[in-house]
Amino acid sequence: MDAISVIRAKRDRQELNGEQIDWIIDAYTRGAVAEEQMSALAMAVYLNGMTRAEISRWTAAMIASGERMDFGALDRPTADKHSTGGVGDKITLPLAPLVAACGAAVPQLSGRGLGHTGGTLDKLESIPGWRASLTNAEMMEVLRDAGSVICAAGDGLAPADKRLYALRDVTGTVESLPLIASSIMSKKIAEGTGALVLDVKAGSGAFMKNVDDARELAATMVELGHDHGVRTVALLTDMNTPLGLTAGNALEVRESVEVLAGGGPADVVELTVALAREMLDAAGLVDADPAKALADGSAMDVWRRMITAQGGDPDAELPTARERHVVTAPATGVLTRLDAYAVGLAAWRLGAGRARKEDPVQAGAGIELHARPGDHITAGTPLLTLHTDTPEAFPYAEAALEGAWQIDPAETYAPTPLILDRIG
Amino acid sequence: MDAISVIRAKRDRQELNGEQIDWIIDAYTRGAVAEEQMSALAMAVYLNGMTRAEISRWTAAMIASGERMDFGALDRPTADKHSTGGVGDKITLPLAPLVAACGAAVPQLSGRGLGHTGGTLDKLESIPGWRASLTNAEMMEVLRDAGSVICAAGDGLAPADKRLYALRDVTGTVESLPLIASSIMSKKIAEGTGALVLDVKAGSGAFMKNVDDARELAATMVELGHDHGVRTVALLTDMNTPLGLTAGNALEVRESVEVLAGGGPADVVELTVALAREMLDAAGLVDADPAKALADGSAMDVWRRMITAQGGDPDAELPTARERHVVTAPATGVLTRLDAYAVGLAAWRLGAGRARKEDPVQAGAGIELHARPGDHITAGTPLLTLHTDTPEAFPYAEAALEGAWQIDPAETYAPTPLILDRIG
Repeated sequence: MDAISVIRAKRDRQELNGEQIDWIIDAYTRGAVAEEQMSALAMAVYLNGMTRAEISRWTAAMIASGERMDFGALDRPTADKHSTGGVGDKITLPLAPLVAACGAAVPQLSGRGLGHTGGTLDKLESIPGWRASLTNAEMMEVLRDAGSVICAAGDGLAPADKRLYALRDVTGTVESLPLIASSIMSKKIAEGTGALVLDVKAGSGAFMKNVDDARELAATMVELGHDHGVRTVALLTDMNTPLGLTAGNALEVRESVEVLAGGGPADVVELTVALAREMLDAAGLVDADPAKALADGSAMDVWRRMITAQGGDPDAELPTARERHVVTAPATGVLTRLDAYAVGLAAWRLGAGRARKEDPVQAGAGIELHARPGDHITAGTPLLTLHTDTPEAFPYAEAALEGAWQIDPAETYAPTPLILDRIG
Repeated sequence: MDAISVIRAKRDRQELNGEQIDWIIDAYTRGAVAEEQMSALAMAVYLNGMTRAEISRWTAAMIASGERMDFGALDRPTADKHSTGGVGDKITLPLAPLVAACGAAVPQLSGRGLGHTGGTLDKLESIPGWRASLTNAEMMEVLRDAGSVICAAGDGLAPADKRLYALRDVTGTVESLPLIASSIMSKKIAEGTGALVLDVKAGSGAFMKNVDDARELAATMVELGHDHGVRTVALLTDMNTPLGLTAGNALEVRESVEVLAGGGPADVVELTVALAREMLDAAGLVDADPAKALADGSAMDVWRRMITAQGGDPDAELPTARERHVVTAPATGVLTRLDAYAVGLAAWRLGAGRARKEDPVQAGAGIELHARPGDHITAGTPLLTLHTDTPEAFPYAEAALEGAWQIDPAETYAPTPLILDRIG
């Protein structure tokens, strides 16, 4: 077996066999296949695709490249969620403690943001003292103590995916269904959860702009989960509008705490409860009542224990940006559109996101929305507040927001559902 | 400009513009574009192709990545030849001194063999003392003194191509028309010849198995030559049968000297004279008579001066292999087929070629043919003699020759022409 013959096979539109896939992933992990060979193969996969059988084997090989965690020693079922990423998507923050409050264990390995989408770890790091990096033993301790844990994935999980993900990022091979599906699922399966709920987003602020592409990705990932004995369900959700009323790290933590306190924007609450319901069902806890756990404060209790167990102070003042700039509504009427991508890009430019993995983020930067599609607004009143420590960014953020909203004089607004489909 | 946007454009089947091509080649040469980025782009080019305009600009950018030689100071026109490579293709050896004997200057930069095709420099290095590496000043001196020079290309010529060629070799992106055409032509144009004749081979022993592919490659390269002011002509020639009666380094030098002495196999003489005719015409020397220069010894005189000027002894005994093995004809009849690829592969296994660039070759190894298609042969008489210093290779060479020939009882042989077409 050698790298060139595997590259040539995919280049020539052949289906790779199991031995070829196992060999190339193992050899890449060992360093026997060079980065330039893997990138040529990734481009051939991007352009020629992979069958479901190839994707399944590729995923299995990436799982086998590292350790596989096991939560069998816990006295409750495990459930995890993965979102393909969007603007204002803080759902993991209220969701993990909520599901734990309802009786499941939630070992939530999360990532950092890149580009216009935020990262869960970046958000939580705005809480003074909170630590994202835990050893496996620490992770298990937080899980036993609080019921949920949100932390960075260790280097031992799917190391082949870690290298390939970084390689795809610089070689124009990110947006490939087989490579996205196998990347997400190899990490989630190696993590050892028993139940997995996928939030696959479609729309301007998502990775997949198109609903059909998102549905195919969802179906592929659900199958991959089943292949590996993980009870997997996907919700297909809208990402043409930001989730909730905030995009930015500390801003989103604040909003998440509101949800845990029984308040918060309706769409965030709706999606949090829907995903919790799916996770609990998949974990076999069909009698649990997530809406009640939000209302009675039990989810908030788990949140406080979890944040504290990871070194954070749940009562600490969250950081705020040094400068603010209010964008006012240019007309009176109904807000019929507020574009997620534009808001994400503007928040990114204000300092909430990063362009390169090694860049820092500003904890206080981001955007507050004072209205959502469907709301009546009056000319001259605040529409958005931009937050940043670097006010020279305001013009760039405003440029990103050019054309991002639409205000119509008559009530022409037809609301679109947040949850578009369920693939189970 | 950045590498990812250029990769994405080609990935998405867009035509790259001049600025994108100039930037990526320059940045790759400077090391600002990584090998893994260039290999992803090469795979995208392989699968999505390039327009003629893109190939032309890509070639120009590779020429601009290094120095461009200039033979304007010579008192005669320059002419060069390039062959896309075949089995037993020793034509450069008699051709360069022949064309020089007819009045042109022949600055022939050549390469080494890889895989089943031989390399001109490997062949000449079987002559005791002969040196392939010359400085530009030494090259000019040999050219002035002998009229022709055959040597290795310096590092200064098209360095972008040098890196890209090595990269393509390990990433399954060799057999791409745009990349082959631009690689060959960037080196030849940077070399500064005024006239160029291409020997584009088609058949089992060639890079291009298919005549139509070879014709398209030839037409592309002829256009590229014209784009850059080089008078360029291509002959499309058959490579289903080895050229001449030898494949192997010293064996081919011996046969080349026979041709220079006025003898040698008919096909080698035919192709040598035809290519010389084209080179002389393209150089404006329409009255020159290459057949005469072979017959009267003037080509041989140039050969001896050229070999001597590069440290070689034209009268030295050439190396011979330590072991021989004769393969006899299994039947009586007419030899109707002798497969070039099989003979090339067998010669390679005997030690005449190399698997990796850094491998040595055996000077004496190779294959002698005792018959060519169209010849009558008698069962039990010698058909081939295998030569090697490593007799453990004989079984592997014989395995490569399995099914390589056909002997028919009746005279069913219909000869195919050696020169299939001319693209000018």
